[in-house]
Amino acid sequence: MAKETLLLRNVRPQGGETVDVLIRDGHIARIAADQHAAPGAQSIDGENAILLPGLVEAHTHLDKTLLGMGWRPHQAGPTLKDKIDTERHLRREWDIDPHRQSMRQALLSLGHGSTAIRSHVDMDTDCGMEGFEGVSRTREALAGLIDIQIVAFPQSGLLVRPGTLELMDQALRDGADVVGGLDPCSMDRDPKGHLDMVFELAERYGKPVDIHLHEPGELGAFSIELITERCRAHAMQGRVTISHAFCLGMPDRARALSLIDDLAEAHIHIATVATPFRPVPLADDLRAAGVTLCAGSDGIRDCWGPYGNADMLERAMHLGLRNNFRRDEDVEHALWCCTYGGAEVMNLENYGLTEGCRADLVLVGAETPAHAVVTHPPRKLVLKGGRIVAENGCALRDAP
Amino acid sequence: MAKETLLLRNVRPQGGETVDVLIRDGHIARIAADQHAAPGAQSIDGENAILLPGLVEAHTHLDKTLLGMGWRPHQAGPTLKDKIDTERHLRREWDIDPHRQSMRQALLSLGHGSTAIRSHVDMDTDCGMEGFEGVSRTREALAGLIDIQIVAFPQSGLLVRPGTLELMDQALRDGADVVGGLDPCSMDRDPKGHLDMVFELAERYGKPVDIHLHEPGELGAFSIELITERCRAHAMQGRVTISHAFCLGMPDRARALSLIDDLAEAHIHIATVATPFRPVPLADDLRAAGVTLCAGSDGIRDCWGPYGNADMLERAMHLGLRNNFRRDEDVEHALWCCTYGGAEVMNLENYGLTEGCRADLVLVGAETPAHAVVTHPPRKLVLKGGRIVAENGCALRDAP
Ligand SMILES: [Zn+2]
Ligand SMILES: [Zn+2]
Repeated sequence: MAKETLLLRNVRPQGGETVDVLIRDGHIARIAADQHAAPGAQSIDGENAILLPGLVEAHTHLDKTLLGMGWRPHQAGPTLKDKIDTERHLRREWDIDPHRQSMRQALLSLGHGSTAIRSHVDMDTDCGMEGFEGVSRTREALAGLIDIQIVAFPQSGLLVRPGTLELMDQALRDGADVVGGLDPCSMDRDPKGHLDMVFELAERYGKPVDIHLHEPGELGAFSIELITERCRAHAMQGRVTISHAFCLGMPDRARALSLIDDLAEAHIHIATVATPFRPVPLADDLRAAGVTLCAGSDGIRDCWGPYGNADMLERAMHLGLRNNFRRDEDVEHALWCCTYGGAEVMNLENYGLTEGCRADLVLVGAETPAHAVVTHPPRKLVLKGGRIVAENGCALRDAP
Repeated sequence: MAKETLLLRNVRPQGGETVDVLIRDGHIARIAADQHAAPGAQSIDGENAILLPGLVEAHTHLDKTLLGMGWRPHQAGPTLKDKIDTERHLRREWDIDPHRQSMRQALLSLGHGSTAIRSHVDMDTDCGMEGFEGVSRTREALAGLIDIQIVAFPQSGLLVRPGTLELMDQALRDGADVVGGLDPCSMDRDPKGHLDMVFELAERYGKPVDIHLHEPGELGAFSIELITERCRAHAMQGRVTISHAFCLGMPDRARALSLIDDLAEAHIHIATVATPFRPVPLADDLRAAGVTLCAGSDGIRDCWGPYGNADMLERAMHLGLRNNFRRDEDVEHALWCCTYGGAEVMNLENYGLTEGCRADLVLVGAETPAHAVVTHPPRKLVLKGGRIVAENGCALRDAP
C-alpha cells in the first residue's frame, strides 16, 4: 500500500496556496497543508513549484515526425497538395517508421509534461495500415505513461482514393479512437459524400469525429455548415472537433461570429495550432460563445515543416501571442486550452486538480501560471497515474 | 601577444565545413583547417558547433523591462494610449530603475549571443533624462561586452508634450546614437511637424533615424510617404529605419508593394518583431525589393506585455513562423535578419565571419543554421571582440 503512495509536499495547485498533495492508487487522495507521509511512503519536496494537471497535446501527427533522423531540409512546394504528395514519396525513401518515430515524439511530449495526446494517423492506399499499426504499438508500449488517442486520418483523401474507406473502417474496428476527415470540399471535391461517410463511420463504431479544415473564407464556412448539420442529425453534440478552422478568422466578423454561435449550439469543439501566418479562430470569440478550444503542435519536424518541439506550455505561449493575450487571466486561458480544453475535447476521465482526480500532474518552477506560460521552463516533474514518468524536462523512459 | 590570441578549433562558420578560427587582437585573423595554437595561447574545441556572427537585437527597450522584479500581472488596457499612460504611472510606483533593468536585459541578451543592441529609450516630461542616463551608464558598464545604441525615443509624444524636444536635443548632445520618432499622425496629430523635427534633429547632430510606426493601413502608408520624402530631401539614404511598419502588411498588396519599392529606392530599412496578431511587412516582399529587414524583441516582460526572453535565435524562429518559412534557405534568411540585417541597420563595422572581421561570435550546437533557428539551444560560447563573454547560455558577468 505504502509503495503506491506518494506525498508531493510544498506545491501550489494552479499557482495557488502552498499545500501537500497525497497521491494514492494513481489518484489525488488528499490536498491539504502539512500532511505527513505514511511510513515507507515516498515523499517529494516540490519547493513551491506550480502544480498543473498533465498538459494535453490535442492535435498532432505522431506517425510523421523526423525527430532523431538528422536534419532534413524541407522538400515540399507551397501548396497543400505538394506537401501531401512529397510526404507520401519521402515516407518510403527516408524510412519514416511510424512506430519508432511516434515513440520519439510521444516521449519528448511526456518530458514536457503532456500526459495525453490525440494523434491523427495517416491511412491511404500507399501506406495502408502501417501508420496505424506503428502508432498502435506505441500506444501499447507507453500505456500507463501517456494516453494516446488515434484518429483514423485520410490524409490523401477519402473518396478520391478508392480503398481508403476500407482502411478507415479496418482501423476503427482495430481500435482507432476517432474518425478523421479532411477538407471535404477542396480535397475530396464532394463535401456531402465526404462528410456523410465520416459521420456514418462515426455512427457505426460509436466514435467521435475530428476533421482537419484548412478551407479558407466562405468555402470553409460552407463546410462548417455541413459539419454542424450532420453533428445535429447524428446527435453527436460534444463529440465533434474541427481542427484549424482557419475560416473562422475570416474578415467578415459577423459571419464568423454567427458560425461560432452555431458551433456553440451544436457543442462542437475547435482545435488550433495558433498559426501565425494565417487567419485563425480567435480564442476570445470562442470563449465568449462557449465553444471549447484546445491546442496542439500539429506536425513536428516533419515533411510539412521544420518547426515544433512538442512543448504544450510553449504552445500556450504561442496561443497567447497569436491572440494578443497580455493580462494574466487571458494568458491563463491559453494555458486552460492546453490543459482542461484538451481534456474536454479528448473526453479524459477524472482530469483535474481536485481530490479524486487521476494523478496526471506536472510541476513547473514559476511564480504564477502566466509566468509558467511565458517562460515555459523545463518541467521539474511529471506524474502519470501517480507514477513519476519524467524529471527535469526528460522522460525517464528512453526513446528508440 | 599570445595572451590576446585564441584558437577556436573545430567550428563550422555558418554551418559550413569544419575549420579552426584564429582570433588575434579582437579580430578573426585566420580561418583554416588544422591550425596549431601558438605556445601559451588559449585553444578551445568547438566540437563541430556552428559559428555565427554575434546576434543583433535591433529593436528593444532596455529601460523598461521588469526582468528580475518578480511577476507583475499586466495592468494596461487595450489601446496604445492605455499602455503609454499606464507605463508612465507604474515607472514611479514600481521603481523601474533604467540602469538596473537595462543591465539585466543586456546581460540576458549577451547570454543568448547578442553582441549588439539598438535600444529605444523613453524621454518625456515625466521621466526626463532618467532613462537615457540609466541606459548610458549600462552602455558604459558593458563597453567591450556588448555594443549598445541608444535611440532618443519620444514615447509619450514629441509635439504634444512641450519640453520633449529639448530632452531629445539634450540626449543627442550627450551621446544618444539615433533620433527616434513615433506615429507622426496618430500620436502627435501633426505628421509634418513631427517628422520635420525628427529629421532636423538628425541633420543637426548627424545621426540616423529610427521611427516606430504602428499606424495601420492608409494612415501608416501616408506616414511612410512623408518619411520617404524627408529621407530623400535630407539625403539620409541608408540611415533611416522604420520599426514595425504594420501598414506594409495591408490587404491592398499592390499599394504595399509600391511603398516597398519606394523604401528600397530611398534605401530605408525595416525593423520587425514578427508580431503574430497583426499584419506585418512580409520578409519575402522586402527581400525581393532589396529592403533590409532586421528584427528585435521589442519590449521584454514590461508594462506593455509579459512575453519575451531576449533570444534573437528564437526571434529568428518567430520570424520564420510568421512568414511561413519552411525551406532551409528561407529559415536562413530569418537568421540573416537577426545577424547581418541587424548589423547593416546598426551600421556595425567589420561585422561578419571573414578574416579581418571583429571577433563577435556565437557558437551553437546544431546540425545546420536552420536547425539552430528551429531548436535555438543554449549558446555554447559567446565572444565579444575575441573575448569570452558568455558560456552555456549565460553571460559571465553578473547582473545587478
Ligand atoms: Zn494536423
Ligand atoms: Zn518598440
